[in-house]
Amino acid sequence: MSKVATNPDGRPIQTTGPVLIVGSGLLGASAALALRAANVQVYLQDVSPTSLALARDLGAGEVYGPDSPEPSLVIVAVPPDVTAECVVAALKDHPNAVVTDVASVKSIIVDEVLESGVDASKYVPSHPMAGRERSGAAAADRDLFIGRPWVVVNRPGLDASAQVAVRNLAVDLGSTVIELDADAHDAAVATVSHVPQLVASLLAARLREASEDALALAGQGLRDTTRIAASDPRLWTSIVSGNCGPVVDVLHAFRSDLDNLIEGLESGARDGFGADGSVGAINAAVSAGNEGVARIPGKHGGVPRRWAIIEVLVPDKPGELARLFSELGAIGINIEDLSMDHSAHQRVGAARISVDPTKARFAETELEARGWRIVTQ
Amino acid sequence: MSKVATNPDGRPIQTTGPVLIVGSGLLGASAALALRAANVQVYLQDVSPTSLALARDLGAGEVYGPDSPEPSLVIVAVPPDVTAECVVAALKDHPNAVVTDVASVKSIIVDEVLESGVDASKYVPSHPMAGRERSGAAAADRDLFIGRPWVVVNRPGLDASAQVAVRNLAVDLGSTVIELDADAHDAAVATVSHVPQLVASLLAARLREASEDALALAGQGLRDTTRIAASDPRLWTSIVSGNCGPVVDVLHAFRSDLDNLIEGLESGARDGFGADGSVGAINAAVSAGNEGVARIPGKHGGVPRRWAIIEVLVPDKPGELARLFSELGAIGINIEDLSMDHSAHQRVGAARISVDPTKARFAETELEARGWRIVTQ
Repeated sequence: MSKVATNPDGRPIQTTGPVLIVGSGLLGASAALALRAANVQVYLQDVSPTSLALARDLGAGEVYGPDSPEPSLVIVAVPPDVTAECVVAALKDHPNAVVTDVASVKSIIVDEVLESGVDASKYVPSHPMAGRERSGAAAADRDLFIGRPWVVVNRPGLDASAQVAVRNLAVDLGSTVIELDADAHDAAVATVSHVPQLVASLLAARLREASEDALALAGQGLRDTTRIAASDPRLWTSIVSGNCGPVVDVLHAFRSDLDNLIEGLESGARDGFGADGSVGAINAAVSAGNEGVARIPGKHGGVPRRWAIIEVLVPDKPGELARLFSELGAIGINIEDLSMDHSAHQRVGAARISVDPTKARFAETELEARGWRIVTQ
Repeated sequence: MSKVATNPDGRPIQTTGPVLIVGSGLLGASAALALRAANVQVYLQDVSPTSLALARDLGAGEVYGPDSPEPSLVIVAVPPDVTAECVVAALKDHPNAVVTDVASVKSIIVDEVLESGVDASKYVPSHPMAGRERSGAAAADRDLFIGRPWVVVNRPGLDASAQVAVRNLAVDLGSTVIELDADAHDAAVATVSHVPQLVASLLAARLREASEDALALAGQGLRDTTRIAASDPRLWTSIVSGNCGPVVDVLHAFRSDLDNLIEGLESGARDGFGADGSVGAINAAVSAGNEGVARIPGKHGGVPRRWAIIEVLVPDKPGELARLFSELGAIGINIEDLSMDHSAHQRVGAARISVDPTKARFAETELEARGWRIVTQ
């Protein structure tokens, strides 16, 4: 009597095996672990025998061999620049299987697969928006996809049941399905992921020339805007080089705005404080940014819900944050979001806690009664 | 028998009154509240009778009048574009007082004060790196300066005891003093504050043209890089327009890097996947960003200390985060930093908790034993 396997939301698992996973890196091995935990039969292929053995030893599945059964689903999880050829090989080798891939760019891969002349009616391109700072099977995690958007690409000539199979895979692994065509996907990731990465990198690069004194003035704003500049150059080169066109389109528009801003600032540098040119250009840039950032969906992707933010000073000694959160729990306050704000040199941090606005005043009063110092917003 | 007043680090307060604060906005009223809490006599001036009355009613000090005593220290806390004239007036009206200002740009103000011909030997320009999203006396907080860097500007001809008085003021309010000359200050804030703000705004502006579907793919990286794009355009216009030259210098270098990147990506868009031009340009940009971001000092401004990050999945229901932090406290783990990672649509968030690397494995084991799901890094 075995329990019915369920996904992280408690729905019964829809994916039936055998599943063949080509590529046993972070994404492939993570999907394998999740499917194995749901009692789905998983086989692995990898050009690297070492990676393959590691993934197998981690419990990600059996090595695919000549005697292994025909898969009903093939997941190609290899670097973007070799994805198309692996997809074509999978379609040829397993003509009855649904084939998907998880590469972070789509048009360039879909085009190459279709140009190969293979029957691609069961090829459903996809892209789970999941990743980690570390790569490889050693970093794999069956929970990697939980709560992430997973783009499933629709396109003409696609077998409807094949698309359902890939949607089910995404849901089984805990993701939320978003359907897009390949071009819309590539434009979307250029805007919300690739360009932000590149701009953060270009911005952080300016710090190479900054003095130690200047860096000592770094605050939370700089830390936030440059955090992803610590990302792996090799990974991002492989991602962005497959999406040059859409990325360049966004960067051209960005540069045009930048040029306008620089022109205004140059007039300000000539004409002094409050020169019309600089004031207009700075105001236009910051106002446009206000409009853009307001469009990012809030938690759960619904209409952005406004939480009230309580900011509490937390001494930098063991147990203080734990005590704060424990006391918030005791007075019945749910923490919707949180972040720490601390600059260089300081001995006190500020915890920014997002709470239900109707309970914010109550929470502040209760915390102050317990000796916490609240920073008024 | 009154207790000796101490600063947030427990050191005795050095500032002796009376202190006159010109400008009862966020910074002026916050400094006033902190000084009043330390039993220093505080007087207030403001061109707006409404603001003045509000600050007085909040307990920030008495309204300065013809019968008020001569101040020993004047803090000019007005918008940057009127700071110089207020400093000059203060130096003329109170020739025995030390005069400081708190404006976020320095050279343009110092130049204007010196050009006025007034005796400026007791004028010590300064800049506390503190602020809030809201402005005005209503947002004032006596804890606003705690743990923040406070730049005290050194310059030729400055009275040594005047500089000591302003350094004492910064320490009394809980800040850490950083000594810079005016040009070095302006170059520093251009790099670590003004340009990051403008670049975040330009980046967020690209989201105005994004589809709803694209925005649904927004992840933590986009949220981090654009968070400060929600800042007040009026405030930033007044700040940046006083620092056009240094900001333009940094933006010129930024644009030069951007041009190189765009050129590489354009060749990639022509030549396809893995074209040498795009690969080299992307790799150069992301690698340079790695070098820059690595220079941002860690907590307490020391050698960047590497914390281990534990990532724990937290169901989105009341009390779960509180339970997590309470249990971390119970097993003796101090939380050095934390952030929440959640994308659109998801029902589970990941709490990223920075801990002592020597205790990370222990913490993970203990948390898993208590039923928490750890995301492997």
